[in-house]
Amino acid sequence: MPELRKDPITGRWVIIAGDRPKHPADFLRSPVSAGPLRVCPFCPGQEEKTPPEVLAFRQSGEPNQPGWSVRVVPNKFPVLQVEGDLDRQGDGMFDRMNGIGAHEVIVESPDHKLTWADMPERQLEDVFWAYRARILDLRKDFRLRYITVFRNYGEAAGSLIGHPHSELVALPVIPKRALEELEGCRAYHAFKERCVYCDIVQQEVRAGVRLVTETDRFVVIQPYAPRFPFETWVIPQRHNSHFENADPPTMQNLAWVLRVTLRQIEKTLENPAYNLVLHSAPVQEAPMAHDHWHIELMPKLTRVAGFEWGTGFYINPTPPEESARFLKQAAI
Amino acid sequence: MPELRKDPITGRWVIIAGDRPKHPADFLRSPVSAGPLRVCPFCPGQEEKTPPEVLAFRQSGEPNQPGWSVRVVPNKFPVLQVEGDLDRQGDGMFDRMNGIGAHEVIVESPDHKLTWADMPERQLEDVFWAYRARILDLRKDFRLRYITVFRNYGEAAGSLIGHPHSELVALPVIPKRALEELEGCRAYHAFKERCVYCDIVQQEVRAGVRLVTETDRFVVIQPYAPRFPFETWVIPQRHNSHFENADPPTMQNLAWVLRVTLRQIEKTLENPAYNLVLHSAPVQEAPMAHDHWHIELMPKLTRVAGFEWGTGFYINPTPPEESARFLKQAAI
Repeated sequence: MPELRKDPITGRWVIIAGDRPKHPADFLRSPVSAGPLRVCPFCPGQEEKTPPEVLAFRQSGEPNQPGWSVRVVPNKFPVLQVEGDLDRQGDGMFDRMNGIGAHEVIVESPDHKLTWADMPERQLEDVFWAYRARILDLRKDFRLRYITVFRNYGEAAGSLIGHPHSELVALPVIPKRALEELEGCRAYHAFKERCVYCDIVQQEVRAGVRLVTETDRFVVIQPYAPRFPFETWVIPQRHNSHFENADPPTMQNLAWVLRVTLRQIEKTLENPAYNLVLHSAPVQEAPMAHDHWHIELMPKLTRVAGFEWGTGFYINPTPPEESARFLKQAAI
Repeated sequence: MPELRKDPITGRWVIIAGDRPKHPADFLRSPVSAGPLRVCPFCPGQEEKTPPEVLAFRQSGEPNQPGWSVRVVPNKFPVLQVEGDLDRQGDGMFDRMNGIGAHEVIVESPDHKLTWADMPERQLEDVFWAYRARILDLRKDFRLRYITVFRNYGEAAGSLIGHPHSELVALPVIPKRALEELEGCRAYHAFKERCVYCDIVQQEVRAGVRLVTETDRFVVIQPYAPRFPFETWVIPQRHNSHFENADPPTMQNLAWVLRVTLRQIEKTLENPAYNLVLHSAPVQEAPMAHDHWHIELMPKLTRVAGFEWGTGFYINPTPPEESARFLKQAAI
């Protein structure tokens, strides 16, 4: 019997079609490869192919020269720009404003072929420090209300450049998806006087069936009502609404946890494409008792990911208890 | 300068990257083809390959034999099933219920190769009468609260069978996307005492720049804040919350309007894959002053449709004023 499950944060119902659960081998395999080196604008020596860097961690060399380990540059084809006024206006019954914001690329390593599964832990930690530094800098611009950091890995996930990188977009509005999450967290907190993510962490550690990894700083789970097969959430054990307020031991452990998780996913699903998104509270807000930063990772396993566009609901052929079992079996 | 636009119904902000607007020729072309005839379970003579029909319009023949013009059958691999109890339960802090519902396929023609652009108007009208008949029958089951009818055209849109068909899913819950729309309509109506879709129809007819087609029964527009290039809405001129309450002249004109619209899209974009969704009010509700049924059509024009998964916001490279101009230029 198929099952309907409700996401406790957003209230979204998902169909878990568990009668014929899809196992890792049932999905279309198309392992991601980094692609040719030749023309990569993110490789050392090609620094002039990007706009000048806004941040770099480097052992040697001048700005915009080789010698960096992590480098952040504005996107060459930004979807938003920093200069200008918001100019909010009505247009008859409609509302518009100028596309003010920032769109940056975090080049995560000089090595064109590294994945997060292969990356030295210290290197990955530096990537997170770069996220943090950019968020702290950008939030000084009070027009920017929400900052999203995401990693599209592989062409199927929307990445056109194979070199390891993430992107950051700073927006003058809070996107709908983030608002829904905030609203859901607020409603749960109003009812229970507890954070919904803190409750999820507790329940998942106790239940165990969807728990993949637990450290003293993080849990890695397959969520109760996942939209996609092998959807994975990485949630800090300690309540904190803003990623940029995480302490050094947390940043360090995050690198360890993500590296382990990506190794499990790579091994179980043959290096699939994925989208990884940092969910964190709006940057201009004070710390919140009801919101809790975390990371969501969605492997791209089905050829057509667009079913939800057409129908308004999600169908997931793999119960999270099954996917958790497969990930745990992938010895590291 | 890129622009941010807000959808007046759901409140979703969309980035319209209008500096380098994408024209029809800029998109990856992969015209849909109907594929081989050989093993099609929806072709006449193959009736035993599907579950027995629940509805057929036929000039001749017995049930489940050739002679039908439109045929509705349960999906052979349903995501929901009609038999059983809902059995709503808590699971710790989580909520679940059994996957009760219906999943049906509307086979739209005996002709394997017909598209909506080619279909005789009368045939297409019969497809809509079949939608209506199935909704009226299924809503007698009070457990079923929402019925979605959609058409995935082409592999890129999630369709695995080339024979012309749509799908119907009846759900025991109202999916999130529909709830959001209802909520938005309700809030607008509470503020203005007018239906938001009626206002959109009026404003778009007056403005003209996003209007593609107008009849006495329908407007076809490119919406103000479209998520996707060439996203197209077909809205009845007369207020009515429920598709299944539409009168015969409306059903007839809908066939004319959709045929014309699909011809424009086919010509402008070389027969692209698309998702088409009927948006209608929850079936157990009385007629509503604030909701207004309509059809949304989303061509699949970008190779990677999944950007929104990763980021929580939409980037659309084609302003709707541009796409409206291109569609209008496509003489019929």
